[in-house]
Amino acid sequence: MLAEDIKIYDIHQLRELASRLREEMIGAVRESGGHLSSNLGAVELILALYKAFDFPHDKLIFDVGHQAYAHKLITGRSLSGLRTAGGVSGFPDPAESEYDAFIAGHSGNSVAAGLGFCAARDLRGENYKVICCIGDASLANGTALEAVFASEKKPKNFIVVLNDNGMAIDKNDSALYRSLSKATARRRYRKFNSFLDKRFRTTSPFGRKLRRFKYMVKGWLNKNYFFERCGFKYVGPVDGHDLTELVGVLTELAKIDEPILLHAVTVKGKGMPEAESDPSRYHGVGKNFAQTDHSFSTALGRLLCARAGADASLVAVTAAMADGVGLSEFAEKFPSRFFDAGICEGAAVTMAAGMAMGGLSPVVCLYSTFLQRAYDQIVHDVCLQNLPVIFCIDRAGFVGADGKTHQGLLDISALRAIPNLRVYAPKDCAELADIFDFARAQGAPAAIRYPNGYAPNLGGRYKISDYYLWETLSEGDGVVVLACGARAVSRALEAKKLSGIASVQVVNCRSVVPLDTRLLDFFARRKIITFEEGYENGGFGSAVAEYYAQNNVSVRMKIVGAPGVFVSHASAQQQAEKYKLTAADLARKIQAFDARE
Amino acid sequence: MLAEDIKIYDIHQLRELASRLREEMIGAVRESGGHLSSNLGAVELILALYKAFDFPHDKLIFDVGHQAYAHKLITGRSLSGLRTAGGVSGFPDPAESEYDAFIAGHSGNSVAAGLGFCAARDLRGENYKVICCIGDASLANGTALEAVFASEKKPKNFIVVLNDNGMAIDKNDSALYRSLSKATARRRYRKFNSFLDKRFRTTSPFGRKLRRFKYMVKGWLNKNYFFERCGFKYVGPVDGHDLTELVGVLTELAKIDEPILLHAVTVKGKGMPEAESDPSRYHGVGKNFAQTDHSFSTALGRLLCARAGADASLVAVTAAMADGVGLSEFAEKFPSRFFDAGICEGAAVTMAAGMAMGGLSPVVCLYSTFLQRAYDQIVHDVCLQNLPVIFCIDRAGFVGADGKTHQGLLDISALRAIPNLRVYAPKDCAELADIFDFARAQGAPAAIRYPNGYAPNLGGRYKISDYYLWETLSEGDGVVVLACGARAVSRALEAKKLSGIASVQVVNCRSVVPLDTRLLDFFARRKIITFEEGYENGGFGSAVAEYYAQNNVSVRMKIVGAPGVFVSHASAQQQAEKYKLTAADLARKIQAFDARE
Repeated sequence: MLAEDIKIYDIHQLRELASRLREEMIGAVRESGGHLSSNLGAVELILALYKAFDFPHDKLIFDVGHQAYAHKLITGRSLSGLRTAGGVSGFPDPAESEYDAFIAGHSGNSVAAGLGFCAARDLRGENYKVICCIGDASLANGTALEAVFASEKKPKNFIVVLNDNGMAIDKNDSALYRSLSKATARRRYRKFNSFLDKRFRTTSPFGRKLRRFKYMVKGWLNKNYFFERCGFKYVGPVDGHDLTELVGVLTELAKIDEPILLHAVTVKGKGMPEAESDPSRYHGVGKNFAQTDHSFSTALGRLLCARAGADASLVAVTAAMADGVGLSEFAEKFPSRFFDAGICEGAAVTMAAGMAMGGLSPVVCLYSTFLQRAYDQIVHDVCLQNLPVIFCIDRAGFVGADGKTHQGLLDISALRAIPNLRVYAPKDCAELADIFDFARAQGAPAAIRYPNGYAPNLGGRYKISDYYLWETLSEGDGVVVLACGARAVSRALEAKKLSGIASVQVVNCRSVVPLDTRLLDFFARRKIITFEEGYENGGFGSAVAEYYAQNNVSVRMKIVGAPGVFVSHASAQQQAEKYKLTAADLARKIQAFDARE
Repeated sequence: MLAEDIKIYDIHQLRELASRLREEMIGAVRESGGHLSSNLGAVELILALYKAFDFPHDKLIFDVGHQAYAHKLITGRSLSGLRTAGGVSGFPDPAESEYDAFIAGHSGNSVAAGLGFCAARDLRGENYKVICCIGDASLANGTALEAVFASEKKPKNFIVVLNDNGMAIDKNDSALYRSLSKATARRRYRKFNSFLDKRFRTTSPFGRKLRRFKYMVKGWLNKNYFFERCGFKYVGPVDGHDLTELVGVLTELAKIDEPILLHAVTVKGKGMPEAESDPSRYHGVGKNFAQTDHSFSTALGRLLCARAGADASLVAVTAAMADGVGLSEFAEKFPSRFFDAGICEGAAVTMAAGMAMGGLSPVVCLYSTFLQRAYDQIVHDVCLQNLPVIFCIDRAGFVGADGKTHQGLLDISALRAIPNLRVYAPKDCAELADIFDFARAQGAPAAIRYPNGYAPNLGGRYKISDYYLWETLSEGDGVVVLACGARAVSRALEAKKLSGIASVQVVNCRSVVPLDTRLLDFFARRKIITFEEGYENGGFGSAVAEYYAQNNVSVRMKIVGAPGVFVSHASAQQQAEKYKLTAADLARKIQAFDARE
């Protein structure tokens, strides 16, 4: 395996390997899509880490796996079929390889996880190094900051590698970023440093002394630097693409046991000119580097621009996901009303609550999976105060290639129990606008969830209103399919056709909280199937079952949704197939239920 | 109102007022319990703020309301009946007074909320100051840190008052704390400062120039201090009990528009010798300053000590709540296996995940309400990796006097949808131990929830096992009461007696995930009442309704739990009465259901 070969490679061989790895990555992403810019930027860092440390005995914890493709390749995993069913996942995952020390889909967890490993190691009297590799954008996340500040005494044999590509995704005016750039700018020292490096081999006794001297110089220059206050020896900045420098420094660091923060400066997209010049464009891409079509995200962006033009109180808030949630145009058109909190979902939501309290009408746009980070802020800061904050929840339901860590299957269960919060799920982009307007008119907190990918326009008869919370899209007096969410509704309509049963009634249940109890009462004696792309436990179907139970009504119903498992990468369609949530699956369930006495 | 009088009070009158306020607070807490130490420490700060600023036009945002009693008193609220039904709540709440700019029950939200207010003010062209008053312990919270680091450009007219009592509750080795102590230690400057203050009145033209000079000196001394990097002018440290200094500084600060961090050093428990010498003891107390009896917390503490003695891999993790969750003895006996992350629930949970990955057996002890802060970490870091982390969730159900911000009503809904996570609710302290052992034996993540207050020992027949997930405590072939949790089970037993119906069967449903489907199948043709102290939406009853619906079984059932509202302060018993969850209420429901055809 390459991981072992690297130990004996010289710098020249490592450089060649770096090129080969980049080629493989670019090829694999061209083939099946993936995260490119960050992965290209971390190649030399990873090679140097493998040269200096002994994985998997030592633990390498990535903070978000965007960086880890090189690591996957050198630990014997092929990127062919990357992020597709049966291929490797896009992020590190201990279930995939013993070299993946910890899961890495949500930003900011690595330092806390690393501290946990160190505590375990020290208590068990074991002996390994724990290395966290965290990007500058992730470091600004609350969980990361909590861990960095956790104690002024950091454990021994604990190294945090700060992969500083100066991106912080869509945001770089953060205080942290500025501190880092200041350090990076100490060019005089860096020149001095590389001069010494070139003159003296670090393996010589003198070289080692020299290195210690260099750390001292660096220590003076970086005196008072905030990592030092947090119990780390600060080392850097080093050039994150200079293998000689990296291997030299990391080999030294492997020999000492002090807690270290190594600051490596990298270039996002390194080695692929298009990506270097526009790293955001190549951050995450589809097949052939295409930008994926996200109907709902695009529709939301347009909608917010339109509404913002007419209403000066409307502001948009996101957490390092402006492109992903469709806010790029809004950010350009209304820069003073666009707020990107960085990868700080909690602060973003609380900030939005403050804005609402101050008289604005904030719209918080997040992915379903990342919204989980702000659960308490939604409860305590928004809903308890009943503030008119609208949550636009993108990537709800199966997310496809991003896999286990990114699924949007929990939002209904988590949100529908929170008092004061209304929860909606539009059937298509046109209805997104209707629901958005309806939700804002209530002057109360609301969450609107929708999936990624293409969404056909389904027409419909009644705009949402207090009377028409739900709408029947296809009439019938037999089995009632209560479908919740865009994919569920369009599949339910198709399932009716496939079933060949004309008496099936298909209802678009666009409001989860409140339920359309008028219709539910009306359906009480019918056979009911609820259908959603979300966990069955606590989801929409659960809400329906609960409503009948609360009112002491016995019904014949069946809940169809995702089972309680973490869903691996594949296309969203394959995920639906695997868990029997396609139109054909639903058609069979309708037939079986219809046939029952 | 005092808030207006303060404007014309001189320092002498303010001092007298401070004494009076302290007396009132101490009297009120003696009468009905509450938070004492922090409130005593913030009196002069609050008076000086009211002297210098113009509330409620200016916005005063407290970070956790522990500090706010003086603020309540001077804004016309009586503390008599504090935290009891009909009296004032223990925390600031905009629903209670226009002087309460933002809710303040969970730590770390003030700075983000303040940034939100500033954004709203500036966009709307309004003109007021936003002042956040945050304790040093809260500042270490991730949401607070996210906001502090959010941007290197902080808004104008934004003042963060750091109320530094050097406590950080049970933990003071944090990096933040050390930075603060360093600043506090600059005694030479402080002496110089107070010398100048005594010599020159700050209202004279020379006094003003002098003050500016003093800021400059202070600026030099505190150069590179981390708040400056985050866009604040750092001012301080000032003596948080010296009204002359505080009024002088704050009056100056009210005149300038720069973003300021004012560092005030206070003494927790100030003015009450017992509290000053043992501030943790008087942090939160009951009537007559008694320590409340928490059967479950005490039982958990003993249990963990017992198990830790026999199993070196067991470690306990909490987030600034060692006393509250019953871990004081554990912390003393097993200092190297006790981890207090400070008010950092997210990092605490992720750290526990790292520990589990490293081979330990971590038990995370948190209040139900604060667990909400770690929702994503539970999903992504613990459950996705299926790590054997046990969550001991204290204060589940109604919490009584702490009120709206602290209720433990959401945990079942939030947790039961998370794949891999088992969820339990013991009926009494003896069963807590059985369930704890059972959960650990599974080697998978588990949450065990229990309420505060006294819990009677209910006996029982079968220890929990895979076969006996639930147990019948009182036999019968009529209405089945499925009771979940200690309070629900003991009330259900009483309700059977009160109902006078011998055929009622009472089942202790101690396992929420998984459900005892063997028993549920057995009960399918019976009348079923589910009973719990948690929100009905998505709760235990919902899980039961959902199980039958998933299996296409029509049942006659009724869900009894808390309605979807935020529940205000009162005793836990009064809260149960208000929402009709007492034994008598349940007895009536049993009778009505029993009588139905």
